[in-house]
Amino acid sequence: MADNKKMVEAITSMEVDFAQWYTDVVKKAELIDYTSVKGCMVIKPAGYAIWELIQKQLDERFKAAGVQNVYLPMFIPESLLQKEKDHVEGFAPEVAWVTHGGLQPLQERMCVRPTSETLFCDFYKNEVHSYRDLPKVYNQWCSVVRWEKETRPFLRSREFLWQEGHTVHATAEEAEARTIQMLNLYAQFCEEVLAIPVIKGQKTEKEKFAGAEATYTIEALMHDGKALQSGTSHNFGDGFAKAFDIQFTDKDNTLKYVHQTSWGMTTRLIGALIMVHGDNEGLVLPPRVAPIQVCVIPIQQKKEGVMEKALELKECLSKEFRVKLDDTDKTPGFKFAEAEMRGYPIRVEIGPKDIEAGRCVICRRDTREKIEVALEDLESKVGELMETIQREMLERARKHRDEHTYVALNMEEFEKTFAEKSGFVKAMWCGCRECEDLIKEKLSVTSRCMPFEQEKLADVCVCCGKPAQKMVYWGRAY
Amino acid sequence: MADNKKMVEAITSMEVDFAQWYTDVVKKAELIDYTSVKGCMVIKPAGYAIWELIQKQLDERFKAAGVQNVYLPMFIPESLLQKEKDHVEGFAPEVAWVTHGGLQPLQERMCVRPTSETLFCDFYKNEVHSYRDLPKVYNQWCSVVRWEKETRPFLRSREFLWQEGHTVHATAEEAEARTIQMLNLYAQFCEEVLAIPVIKGQKTEKEKFAGAEATYTIEALMHDGKALQSGTSHNFGDGFAKAFDIQFTDKDNTLKYVHQTSWGMTTRLIGALIMVHGDNEGLVLPPRVAPIQVCVIPIQQKKEGVMEKALELKECLSKEFRVKLDDTDKTPGFKFAEAEMRGYPIRVEIGPKDIEAGRCVICRRDTREKIEVALEDLESKVGELMETIQREMLERARKHRDEHTYVALNMEEFEKTFAEKSGFVKAMWCGCRECEDLIKEKLSVTSRCMPFEQEKLADVCVCCGKPAQKMVYWGRAY
Repeated sequence: MADNKKMVEAITSMEVDFAQWYTDVVKKAELIDYTSVKGCMVIKPAGYAIWELIQKQLDERFKAAGVQNVYLPMFIPESLLQKEKDHVEGFAPEVAWVTHGGLQPLQERMCVRPTSETLFCDFYKNEVHSYRDLPKVYNQWCSVVRWEKETRPFLRSREFLWQEGHTVHATAEEAEARTIQMLNLYAQFCEEVLAIPVIKGQKTEKEKFAGAEATYTIEALMHDGKALQSGTSHNFGDGFAKAFDIQFTDKDNTLKYVHQTSWGMTTRLIGALIMVHGDNEGLVLPPRVAPIQVCVIPIQQKKEGVMEKALELKECLSKEFRVKLDDTDKTPGFKFAEAEMRGYPIRVEIGPKDIEAGRCVICRRDTREKIEVALEDLESKVGELMETIQREMLERARKHRDEHTYVALNMEEFEKTFAEKSGFVKAMWCGCRECEDLIKEKLSVTSRCMPFEQEKLADVCVCCGKPAQKMVYWGRAY
Repeated sequence: MADNKKMVEAITSMEVDFAQWYTDVVKKAELIDYTSVKGCMVIKPAGYAIWELIQKQLDERFKAAGVQNVYLPMFIPESLLQKEKDHVEGFAPEVAWVTHGGLQPLQERMCVRPTSETLFCDFYKNEVHSYRDLPKVYNQWCSVVRWEKETRPFLRSREFLWQEGHTVHATAEEAEARTIQMLNLYAQFCEEVLAIPVIKGQKTEKEKFAGAEATYTIEALMHDGKALQSGTSHNFGDGFAKAFDIQFTDKDNTLKYVHQTSWGMTTRLIGALIMVHGDNEGLVLPPRVAPIQVCVIPIQQKKEGVMEKALELKECLSKEFRVKLDDTDKTPGFKFAEAEMRGYPIRVEIGPKDIEAGRCVICRRDTREKIEVALEDLESKVGELMETIQREMLERARKHRDEHTYVALNMEEFEKTFAEKSGFVKAMWCGCRECEDLIKEKLSVTSRCMPFEQEKLADVCVCCGKPAQKMVYWGRAY
């Protein structure tokens, strides 16, 4: 068990230093590596395989919702970026500029896309002429670049992978409906696939996307009580359409501006998976996004018949699950620790005594519970456990979130809660920017969202005591 | 039929102007659109869906061959690009340079990856220490940028999508075996999925990849007799390993340099599909990469029962195939022309008389043959036709390629063939750069490859008359 212990000791305990625990997990579970390119990371096979499962399942849901995939250029000419005033102000400070092509300076410099609203507008301007051309519900899977000063793997890096949906509609109502439809799709995806419960709501004016009329968000709570914005959906109204002159001839033969939306999810979801489900043994992956769902580990593997039986179990389980057989010459203890570090939902142990008794031992990664199973029941038991683990991980995450959601009715309570606790705090708000700024200044927290499910905690704003407009979730955020 | 005719007339005939025909098809079949970003294109839903089918089927073959996907940064610091001398000479003239991040100039400028050998080397240097860490067989799906002066949709654009595999091995033999394994995988993929026959062979010294010891290629012949390099696989030996100092401790406890390979296929395969299979009615897609395999078109759709029956056929066929029902209010003639332009392999026509007779009409896109089928046999007949079409498209392409492959034994024949014909010309070569340069200068053709299947056409070089070393395929290339 010496090597086992050594491997476990190498991770900082999350109670001691959550940030260091996170860094240790992404490295030890071999999800990423740092590179010579400052602020950018390599996503290694174990990390990229999670992204592939996210992509596949999200893309299936997109297609069922009528979304079509496209690919637009990665460069945005400066003049195009500048067409929508709020948008360029929001993004210009953090883009990477290309100034030379080959040996020649460019006539006009271009930035690497930080997001592609301007490119999609330029495209739709030529595509959309009549109401018959509407709606267009397009999406692209690509990487984007934002020149962040401080970076952290998956959570904030200069380049990251994402999908960005961009739609055009004939009416404001249709655009709003699509914005909400995609937010709901994101929320369902987080809960059903990632086992991460989210709060759905609207961002305040201060926190909304540069150029949007309304930004909707899903907010998740990490294990350390910090919030993570996990997906956003924006309604642009006709603001971009006017800036880019995207008009169509409607059924009544008049020219009208289109209404637009955009929505995105990124590789930061992998960060959310780590910080919602992980523990001091490492990563814990929900079965639906686990690249390896079952790891078969032979015990006393040199004894006759053990490796053969382990291989037989692997092949049997592979018909339905993503299975790995660890047939390396490491000790079982080391293999157990490694399987835990990498977050495989189920580990199957099989040794000479098990074979003799016609059984094996299953160990759940999430609860670390050990279960003896007759070999003939293994396949059905694993199938059942996959469902149980997926469901219970969501339930545990929801319980944690609920237990770390507090209420503050005045500034004293508000300050005290954030001083003593870590989590979401629900509080009433008058709707003024001044109060939002003051709360941020005093408590170092931001408004996460005005949830769709409003509660009337009090009649007055937690900050100024004037009549309250909205209940808001506040928190410290990644 | 007026609108039908109008649509067809809008395409230039390939016999009149093949280049214009190509441009017309990519636009009319709605595969791409031009953008404000010079030399870059938008890949529209109909084009991107082909790429998704290529990706999916190629990626499945990669995974079966032990390939793991990763993602590396899109930027290469200038100092990293410069580490391998031949490589930087090959690529520096055609890269895009990022000089500013946000409002600040960068300390060191970075290029957008034109290919990622240097980044993978930088990564492997930290990953590989012992023979136990080898081999690593990694791939990434991404976009790359090469600052081309003249661009054409899919064939040559400043940004394109591709996959790039990069591997490290303990021995030269293993690296060479992997290089050939991936070339064979590419060739099989082209033939089995794209229905495009290819010539497998090795590039000459002059034509090989910048920094490679050996470059292998698959070469396809387009309908106009020009060649298209459709995939390449490079063996780097230990050249990059020495430049980047990638060493490992071998079983015998000595430090050794790794041996490396890389291999790639790109969105230009979509250009190949168009130019190998297309005709004067538009695109013709092999069933395996057709985003829509069957288009059901109702005739006299307003008559009672027609639309219901068409929908029933669509739903029945959708269980097994990718099916579209064209229920728009366009005329059947227009719908036929559109289905042909977009290259749907099979069109199913169903009208009142068909329904009465319990049958429908199937039209094959590749041969334009019409077949009457009893409704109860439709599903099995479509399944059978999918296989037949896929097979016959490959056979026709192979026949065309063979009929446009010529032999030249001396310079006179060589010049005459290229003056009168368009296709591959096989000729013997002494192996000297001088002859290769002279042939290029005189005939405006390049060596496509030294095929694995060598033939001894003559004893002497077609150019200088000295003893021949290799038979070479020559051609004009995209």
